[in-house]
Amino acid sequence: MTLGPVLDRIDADLPDAIDRLLALLRIPSISTDPAYAVECQKAADWLVDDLKTVGFQADKRQTPGHPMVVAHADGPADTPHLMFYGHYDVQPVDPLDLWDTPPFEPALEDTPAGKVIRGRGSSDDKGQLMTFVEACRAWTAVHGSLPARISLFFEGEEESGSPSLIPFMEENKDELTTDIALICDTGLFESKTPAIITQLRGMTCEDFTITGPDRDLHSGMYGGVAMNPIRILTRALADLHDDTGRITLPGFYDGVEELSDEIRAQWQGLGFDHVKFLADVGLKHPAGEQDRMPIEMLWSRPTCDVNGIWGGYTGDGFKTVLPSKASAKVSFRLVGKQDPDAIRKTFRAYLEDRLPDGFTIEYRTEKGAPAAQVSTDNPMFEQARKALTDEWGIPAAFAGCGGSIPIAGYFKDILGVDAMLIGFGKDDDNIHSPNEKYDLESFHKGIRSWARILAELS
Amino acid sequence: MTLGPVLDRIDADLPDAIDRLLALLRIPSISTDPAYAVECQKAADWLVDDLKTVGFQADKRQTPGHPMVVAHADGPADTPHLMFYGHYDVQPVDPLDLWDTPPFEPALEDTPAGKVIRGRGSSDDKGQLMTFVEACRAWTAVHGSLPARISLFFEGEEESGSPSLIPFMEENKDELTTDIALICDTGLFESKTPAIITQLRGMTCEDFTITGPDRDLHSGMYGGVAMNPIRILTRALADLHDDTGRITLPGFYDGVEELSDEIRAQWQGLGFDHVKFLADVGLKHPAGEQDRMPIEMLWSRPTCDVNGIWGGYTGDGFKTVLPSKASAKVSFRLVGKQDPDAIRKTFRAYLEDRLPDGFTIEYRTEKGAPAAQVSTDNPMFEQARKALTDEWGIPAAFAGCGGSIPIAGYFKDILGVDAMLIGFGKDDDNIHSPNEKYDLESFHKGIRSWARILAELS
Repeated sequence: MTLGPVLDRIDADLPDAIDRLLALLRIPSISTDPAYAVECQKAADWLVDDLKTVGFQADKRQTPGHPMVVAHADGPADTPHLMFYGHYDVQPVDPLDLWDTPPFEPALEDTPAGKVIRGRGSSDDKGQLMTFVEACRAWTAVHGSLPARISLFFEGEEESGSPSLIPFMEENKDELTTDIALICDTGLFESKTPAIITQLRGMTCEDFTITGPDRDLHSGMYGGVAMNPIRILTRALADLHDDTGRITLPGFYDGVEELSDEIRAQWQGLGFDHVKFLADVGLKHPAGEQDRMPIEMLWSRPTCDVNGIWGGYTGDGFKTVLPSKASAKVSFRLVGKQDPDAIRKTFRAYLEDRLPDGFTIEYRTEKGAPAAQVSTDNPMFEQARKALTDEWGIPAAFAGCGGSIPIAGYFKDILGVDAMLIGFGKDDDNIHSPNEKYDLESFHKGIRSWARILAELS
Repeated sequence: MTLGPVLDRIDADLPDAIDRLLALLRIPSISTDPAYAVECQKAADWLVDDLKTVGFQADKRQTPGHPMVVAHADGPADTPHLMFYGHYDVQPVDPLDLWDTPPFEPALEDTPAGKVIRGRGSSDDKGQLMTFVEACRAWTAVHGSLPARISLFFEGEEESGSPSLIPFMEENKDELTTDIALICDTGLFESKTPAIITQLRGMTCEDFTITGPDRDLHSGMYGGVAMNPIRILTRALADLHDDTGRITLPGFYDGVEELSDEIRAQWQGLGFDHVKFLADVGLKHPAGEQDRMPIEMLWSRPTCDVNGIWGGYTGDGFKTVLPSKASAKVSFRLVGKQDPDAIRKTFRAYLEDRLPDGFTIEYRTEKGAPAAQVSTDNPMFEQARKALTDEWGIPAAFAGCGGSIPIAGYFKDILGVDAMLIGFGKDDDNIHSPNEKYDLESFHKGIRSWARILAELS
C-alpha cells in the first residue's frame, strides 16, 4: 500500500472535501446552549452517515448530554490499532454583530493571506476533525482499505466541560483502548511549524469574595476608620508576584521541573520570536520570571493571573462608596508535578492570613487539573514527527502548550493510552471568537499529514 | 422679645408643623431625574407660598436647572443679617422594593426608639430645612416679627451636583451677602450631641483605566509571557498605603495640619466610641494611621479609598481571560491645606511610573475640592453653641465632618461669609437609602434649637 497515490487522491478530491466540511459546518451544534441540543444530534448523525461512506462501522451513542460517535474499521494484520479523537460541538457565536458573515453559513473565502474556510467550528474542531476523516477516505478510495486498524471517537460536549466524557470512557474501556490516541485539536507552532504537543499546563482556579463591613458605607462618614475590602484584596493580589515575576505562595514551585537539556536545546532551536508574539497583541516585554526564556514562561513555567476583579461602584460617574465586598477570579496554570489541590489550599491560607479580624471570605470553587507531560518514548512519536517534517518541509517539533487539554490526560489515566496531540490551527484562527476561520492550507496539508502519519505508523 | 413664649408656641404648634412637613415630603422633587423636573418646580412653589404665610417676601428664581427659592424678612434695627441655606431636592428612591412604605407617602410612625417621620427627604433635607422655617413662624406668631433680619436661600440641585449654584451666587452676590450663613444639612454627633461642624474634608477623585494588551487574551495561550493590567493595577493600588496605614504618595501630607491643643482636648472630651461605631457596621479595628485617634482618622486626617475596581471576566463561572483593561475609581479625602490639584498630579505620576513600557492609561476626570476649615473667631459661633447646649442639655461641640459639604466653602469664597453648619440628623436616618426617616425629636428640638439660636444671635 503506497502513499503517493493517496496524496494525489487527496489533492484531486479537495473540492469535494471542502463541500463535506461546509455541510458539517452548517449544523449549529452549540453544546452549551440547550436550544441547540437537536443540532448536536444532527451533527452526530451527519458524522455517522459520512463515516459509513468511508467504510467505518459507525454508531451514535447517547449519553445524559450530547451523543458520542464511535466508529471502527479493520486494517491489515500486524498493524497497530489507532484511535482518533475530535469534537463536533462548537462554541456559541456571541457577539453576533461582530461577525462579517453569518457563523453558520460557511464559505471558502479569498483573503490577502490566502484562501480560508470561514465559519464557526471551521478550526475548532470540525475542520481539524475532518482532516483525519478525509485522510482515511483517500486511503480506502485508493487501496480499498485502511493501512491500520482505526477507531474514531468524537464527542459533542468539549466546549461545555465534557460532563459525559469520563463516565463514557470508563464504561467503554475495552472498546476505546488502542495502541495510541491521535488528537487533532491544537495548532502549528507560530502558525507555520508542525508540532506534536508533549507538555500541557494544568490549572487551579479560585473565585472568591472578601466581605469587610456588613453593608456599603459612605466614605465621607467612614473613610479613614473603616477598612476597605478592596484594599485587602489588592494587597493580597499584588503580593502574589515578587519584583522578579516569581510567584510568592509558599511551596508553589514544588513539583516544577527543569527542562531536560534535550528539550531546552530543541525549544531554543525553534527560534520563538517573542518580540513579535507580544507585539501582535500590543505588548513589549515578557511578564514572567525574568531569568527564564519566554518560551519557558509559556510552556513549562507555572503562572498566576487575575482573570477578573470587581468591587464597589463601577458605573458612570463617581460614588464615594466604601464597599462591603470585593471579589476576584484567580487562576494558576500548573506544570510538572504541581498539585492543584495543594496549591488551592496554600492560596486559601495565604488569603485568610491577610484578612483583618472580622473579615470573611467566601469561595466559589472551580475544579482543578494537574499538568500533563506526554512521554515520547513510544517510537510512534518519532514516526509521526518524520511524517510531519516530510509534509511541511520544516522539522516538526515536540512542543509545549500553555493551555490545558484534559482529554490527553484522560486517555492516559483511564485507558493507559499515550496521546499524540497534532493539529494544524493557526494563531489567527479566531477560535472562540467572531469570524472563526481555518486556512485552506491547514485543511489540505492537514489531510495529507494524517495520510503520511498513517503510512508511517502502519 | 422674649424666648419662652416662642418655645411654648413651637410645642403647641408641633402637630401642624408635622402636617406642613408631610405636605412638602409628598412632592417627589428628585433632582437628578429629568422626569421629576415639574415636581421640583412644585416643591419650590410650595416653599414660596409657605414662606409668604410666615411673613417673608419670597420668590422662585429660575435657573438653567431647577429653581432657587430666595426670601427676605426685616428685623429690628441693629440686629445682624442672617442667611439660612437648605435644599428642597431629594435623592432617587431606588431600590424601591427595599422601602417598607412608599417613599412619597410620608407618615408619622411609632418605632421602639420613638416617633419618626418616615419618607424620602424627611432628614435630607426637607425636614432639616423646615426646622428653621418653623422657628421663624413661631417667632412671628408670638412677636409679630422676627428677632433679626433674615434671608433664606433654598436650592433644588444639591443631590445632583449643584450646577446652577455658583453662577447664581456670583450673579446675586449683593442680595445673598449677609453677616453669617446658617446651614442645616448635617447631624448630631453620635446621634445625641449637638454639634457645629467646623472642619470639612475636601476631596479629589480619579476614575481611570489601564490598558495593556490591545485585546483580551486567552491565559492558556499568553499566560506567563503577557503582562496582565490587573497585576499592574492591584500593585499600584496596594502600594498606596504602607503597613502603618499611612498614604505613600510623595508630598501627600503637605498642608495637613496637626490639631490645636484646644481642639484635641475638646475632641477627646467627646468620648467617641469607635468600637461601637465600627461594630455597628460589622468591623473591629480602625483602618487609618495607627498612631492617630479614630476621631482624627475621620475628621482631620486625609484618606485614600478605592471606591470601585473592575477588570476581566466578572460573571458567573470562570473564563481564563487575560484582560486588555483594568479600571478603578479612587478618591482622596483631603484636610487642612492639601491641594486637590497637586494631589491629582502626584497620583497620576505615581500611576504612570508603574506602567510597563507600552501600557497606557486613560482618565475620566472628576472635579476636586479642598477641605474647609471654618474659623470660629466670629462670636456668633459661641452664641450658637450656648443656645444648642441650653436646648439639648449636653455641651454642644465644635466638631469635624468626614464628608465634603461644598456650600460652606462657596459662602466663604464667593460671598466672604462665614458658614455655621448645624443639623439634627442621626446616624440611622438612612439618608440616600431606602426607609429614610427623621426622628420627631430631631424635628421638634431642631425647631426649638433655631428659635434659641435666633434669640442668641439677635
